[in-house]
Amino acid sequence: MIVMRVDEIAALVAGIVEGDGSREIWGAASLENAGPGDLCFAEGSRAVTRAAHSAAGCILVPEGVRVPGHTTIAVASPKLAFIRAAARLVPLAATLPGIHPSAVVSPSARLAADVSVGPQAVIEDDVEVGGGSRIGPGVVLGSGSRVGSACVLHPGVTIYPGAWLGDRVVIHAGAVIGSDGFGYVFAEGRYNKFPQIGKVVIEDDVEIGSNTTVDRGSLGTTRIGQGTKIDNLCQIAHNVSIGRHCVIAGMTGISGSTEVGDYVVMGGQVAVGDHVRIEERAVVGGASVIPTGKVIRKGTMVWGMPARPLQEMKRLHGHLSRLPELARRLKRMEDQCK
Amino acid sequence: MIVMRVDEIAALVAGIVEGDGSREIWGAASLENAGPGDLCFAEGSRAVTRAAHSAAGCILVPEGVRVPGHTTIAVASPKLAFIRAAARLVPLAATLPGIHPSAVVSPSARLAADVSVGPQAVIEDDVEVGGGSRIGPGVVLGSGSRVGSACVLHPGVTIYPGAWLGDRVVIHAGAVIGSDGFGYVFAEGRYNKFPQIGKVVIEDDVEIGSNTTVDRGSLGTTRIGQGTKIDNLCQIAHNVSIGRHCVIAGMTGISGSTEVGDYVVMGGQVAVGDHVRIEERAVVGGASVIPTGKVIRKGTMVWGMPARPLQEMKRLHGHLSRLPELARRLKRMEDQCK
Amino acid sequence: MIVMRVDEIAALVAGIVEGDGSREIWGAASLENAGPGDLCFAEGSRAVTRAAHSAAGCILVPEGVRVPGHTTIAVASPKLAFIRAAARLVPLAATLPGIHPSAVVSPSARLAADVSVGPQAVIEDDVEVGGGSRIGPGVVLGSGSRVGSACVLHPGVTIYPGAWLGDRVVIHAGAVIGSDGFGYVFAEGRYNKFPQIGKVVIEDDVEIGSNTTVDRGSLGTTRIGQGTKIDNLCQIAHNVSIGRHCVIAGMTGISGSTEVGDYVVMGGQVAVGDHVRIEERAVVGGASVIPTGKVIRKGTMVWGMPARPLQEMKRLHGHLSRLPELARRLKRMEDQCK
Repeated sequence: MIVMRVDEIAALVAGIVEGDGSREIWGAASLENAGPGDLCFAEGSRAVTRAAHSAAGCILVPEGVRVPGHTTIAVASPKLAFIRAAARLVPLAATLPGIHPSAVVSPSARLAADVSVGPQAVIEDDVEVGGGSRIGPGVVLGSGSRVGSACVLHPGVTIYPGAWLGDRVVIHAGAVIGSDGFGYVFAEGRYNKFPQIGKVVIEDDVEIGSNTTVDRGSLGTTRIGQGTKIDNLCQIAHNVSIGRHCVIAGMTGISGSTEVGDYVVMGGQVAVGDHVRIEERAVVGGASVIPTGKVIRKGTMVWGMPARPLQEMKRLHGHLSRLPELARRLKRMEDQCK
Repeated sequence: MIVMRVDEIAALVAGIVEGDGSREIWGAASLENAGPGDLCFAEGSRAVTRAAHSAAGCILVPEGVRVPGHTTIAVASPKLAFIRAAARLVPLAATLPGIHPSAVVSPSARLAADVSVGPQAVIEDDVEVGGGSRIGPGVVLGSGSRVGSACVLHPGVTIYPGAWLGDRVVIHAGAVIGSDGFGYVFAEGRYNKFPQIGKVVIEDDVEIGSNTTVDRGSLGTTRIGQGTKIDNLCQIAHNVSIGRHCVIAGMTGISGSTEVGDYVVMGGQVAVGDHVRIEERAVVGGASVIPTGKVIRKGTMVWGMPARPLQEMKRLHGHLSRLPELARRLKRMEDQCK
Repeated sequence: MIVMRVDEIAALVAGIVEGDGSREIWGAASLENAGPGDLCFAEGSRAVTRAAHSAAGCILVPEGVRVPGHTTIAVASPKLAFIRAAARLVPLAATLPGIHPSAVVSPSARLAADVSVGPQAVIEDDVEVGGGSRIGPGVVLGSGSRVGSACVLHPGVTIYPGAWLGDRVVIHAGAVIGSDGFGYVFAEGRYNKFPQIGKVVIEDDVEIGSNTTVDRGSLGTTRIGQGTKIDNLCQIAHNVSIGRHCVIAGMTGISGSTEVGDYVVMGGQVAVGDHVRIEERAVVGGASVIPTGKVIRKGTMVWGMPARPLQEMKRLHGHLSRLPELARRLKRMEDQCK
């Protein structure tokens, strides 16, 4: 357990203490669940009101805000300060470096000295793993794959042969990186598999959710840009290129050869066709459908099936709701004009 | 192989035999595939008609129904009686208690005496497993997790550290319980991960399908209520609370902090936004989309994108189908009134 | 590395060399990425134009096409010829036959002599595996399951007890074959599980994507027909029957007892209800929704939610887009006729 004094936390987040700076804090919680050892944050006026009733030991608040009877730290962004302090107070469970005796590691694999390899993991020939990376139980690193430094691969992740992961990449349980893309040519009464021999590159600071799948390129490369975060059960097809610092929520699927620019935000269960281009900073609402070949322009917000600009779609849905009324009015007109 | 006499089955399901009570039965099948050793059921008039042509050794029928030339057992609910009898006739394959020598079990794990741990499983520090539970091949139980009694974890399931499972929980292959939720704060040009350090609780008698993912709470708890059944490839996000005795069909996704009441029924591929409230006994049709923050009232049936009350949605779809005709009629009116 | 002369490749694909038949080729690439050792293909006039600028060592082109300054092989179908040549030039990584010492194989399993079983794999009692099959790391073959010859099971695949796979079946990482279907009967305030004790049969030449799930039949059989290809993260429910030579793109879900004919093509994220019949050679557009019990006729193309014939759906979407205009026109009429 890590214990910090309130004034130590304040120093970490460059905030100003109001109340008892010597108080000890050893956890992080929501306002509702917090106890006297917990740090919380209150952002927005409703949260500040709720903060008054919290049992928290210390509350991060916006500058200029006080919560009578509570020890607070005032900062520019309470939520961001909470993220930073919580990372210190509640660190990831430590894993001792070393290779578990049940793991199977090829003699030709090159593992940095402080790598941790969990039980039942399999590391094939010519794999490279950088310093401080944690390869969880049952993870399989296919031959020639490369995992950078300070990565965390949770249990049961499969990295196909030749896949490349940058530094600080986090991959959750059961995700699959580098499986064959879905490409066939129909001839002579059957589907003939097109070669799926391209690369897959996951850049630095990417996080990928549980049971998500990312296919390798067919002849080219599937690429997930630096800092992009992908939720659980997403599917990224062959030759897709995703930019930097995107967020893609759960169950979204992106079909082959689609390009997604930097800072794109996609809701959950979005279906993106092949050869689509989603330009930078576009926002795609949850459950939208973007047909094959479509271009979503820079910075636009779209929604629906098929996706249209959000305002247009809302107007359309309004009209749609009034369709029964429209039909009645037309009938009345027809009756009048007979 | 388990062999039961027809009158033994009748006693088990409190039914009345018509025909040969001494007949021996050793299997369970559909009316179409059944042979002379099989038990079947016929519910509804069409099934009863088909029953006459079945080669089944014994047929469970509604009270008052006879199937000439067949041995039958009359019961109030043939399907339910079939479930009970089949559980006896075709039990789950027995697994001998014991820890397979290839499994890796921490010395600090507390396993009840009759637990079965399959090959290549990994049980980390301070895990607790209750009596009669079966931990399948390659399952990973993270440190501090708790599995109740009489649970079945199929191959390759991952339970993240600290997750709690009640009694008689069944989790199918590849499912992941307790992975990090998808929460980030954008600042200084990148996404900063919000702490995902909450709990996940799977209550008694829950069944979870293959490759389904259930995230832990961020600061709070993700909870799946007693008796709820979740199909394959579903995604349950952080801080979601699902009530008791719900059924959620395949590929449905439920976003963060959504609350689902008791006895809710959801079809497949439903997309539920965050902070939604679906009240008890509501029914959500397959492929529906429920936007962020929406409330679905107690007992209502909804469908569509976005979801509306079923009757309203059907009416709307009817109007939609007649839209081309509506346009023609308006054009005619315009031409007349020129 | 495999090296072939251009005229050897030409002989393999029955093509006519233009240029240097003695040139050596040792790779396959796209026109854009190719180097002097690579084989490419150019199909369609745009690709042929791009071919002129490629650094490829040899280009497969349509009959009658020349690319000045390049060595070409003219064939009836360049893409198909490329598939065949690439399979020879870039074969799957060889795997030595043999059982890895960390694998756990039941003494009652019957494995052909040249089977390869990877590290940490588990092969339970009475399993049968045919000649040349590769069982990847961490794969679990449940008791009594059967894998044909020349199959490839990638890491972490789970085959439930009793499932049957034909010959040359490829299953990608994390896929689950034969888990319990989702069937319950509500009685006495809770869901009672209907027996899920049927079979699952994956016929010859089927390929199944990463983390896809295929449930066993409840009492009957779930069947995937010969040559059918299923992408990542699809869900095939109990008692579904899929014909031969279908392609089903990623994240598509098919509900219980649905029948899909031969040569059906389905886009990604399609939701198919239960007891649907999709007749042979039908085409279902991406993200379509097919309600319970619906029949899609032989050879028709459908799209939308709910799915309709493609032309009708396009017309409807056109009308939908003009709905605001329609409303304005009606208003104008009403104002005129006052």
